[in-house]
Amino acid sequence: MTAARSRAERLAGTQARLAQDVDVWVASASPEGEPYLVPLSFDWDGEALLVATPAASPTGRNLIATRRARLGLGLTRDVSMIDGDVEVVELDALPEDQAERFAARSGFDPRDEPRQYRWFRVTPRRIQAWREADELAGRELMRDGVWLD
Amino acid sequence: MTAARSRAERLAGTQARLAQDVDVWVASASPEGEPYLVPLSFDWDGEALLVATPAASPTGRNLIATRRARLGLGLTRDVSMIDGDVEVVELDALPEDQAERFAARSGFDPRDEPRQYRWFRVTPRRIQAWREADELAGRELMRDGVWLD
Repeated sequence: MTAARSRAERLAGTQARLAQDVDVWVASASPEGEPYLVPLSFDWDGEALLVATPAASPTGRNLIATRRARLGLGLTRDVSMIDGDVEVVELDALPEDQAERFAARSGFDPRDEPRQYRWFRVTPRRIQAWREADELAGRELMRDGVWLD
Repeated sequence: MTAARSRAERLAGTQARLAQDVDVWVASASPEGEPYLVPLSFDWDGEALLVATPAASPTGRNLIATRRARLGLGLTRDVSMIDGDVEVVELDALPEDQAERFAARSGFDPRDEPRQYRWFRVTPRRIQAWREADELAGRELMRDGVWLD
C-alpha cells in the first residue's frame, strides 16, 4: 500500500480510464431488487458513457425499467465507481459519428447484430475513486453531477 | 481471441479463482431496484463465498434486505459470474477457524473494525464463465446450485 493519492491524482486516473479503457462493469437491478452485473464495452464523450446491450437481456430490461446504473471502472484495487442516470436510445437514433466511434473503440458494432440492441447513455451523478482502505477517505470526485474542485 | 475454452477448462479456471483470488465484485440491489456495486475481499470454503461489510453500508443493507447477490470474479475479459443466495451471520457467530481463514486470506479482520460488520455467506446457484463473445455459448457451469458435468 502506497500513500493515499490526492483528489487531483485520482481525477487524472479516472479521466484516463474514461478516455482509454474499453470495458466497464455494469451493475443494474430489476424493479423488484434482483441485482445483475456484466462487463460491457463503452465509449466516453466527455459527458456520458455509452454502452450497448440487447433490449431483452437482463441488463437491457433493468436499465429500461429503472434508468439507473452503477459502473465499476478498473480493477478491484484501483476502482472508479460511477452512479449514473440512464437514457435509452434506439439503435438508429444515435448520431452516426457516435456509433462509429463506439464501434472503433470497442471492436463491436451493435448495428450489425441480429438481436435487438439498444444504446444506453449513462450520465454520471456521482464518481468515487479508491485503491485500498487508506483511500476510502476523500474518494468522492463528483457529486450531483458536478466534478469537485 | 483464442479458441473458445471447453467447459472443463472454464471450470478449472473458475475453481482456481475461487481458491486463490482475494477480491470479488459484489453487485446488490435495494428492494426498490437501486443497483450497488463494490469490490470486497472474500474466502471460499468449497461451498460458499464469505465476505464482510458493515451492516449499515449500502451493500450490507441491500444483502440484509434482499438476500441476493451477483458476483463478478476475474477481469472484464475473463469472468466468472456467480448468482447467489445470501446468508447473514453475526460477527461473533462465525466459527473462529473460518474467521481466521478469512483474515489470513484477505489481510483484513472485520472483528477488529470499529464499525458494525456482518459476515455474508453467498451460496452460488448459478455460475457462468466466459472471456469474449465467442465464449457466450456454453458459459453455464452451475445451474440451480449443481455443477454441470
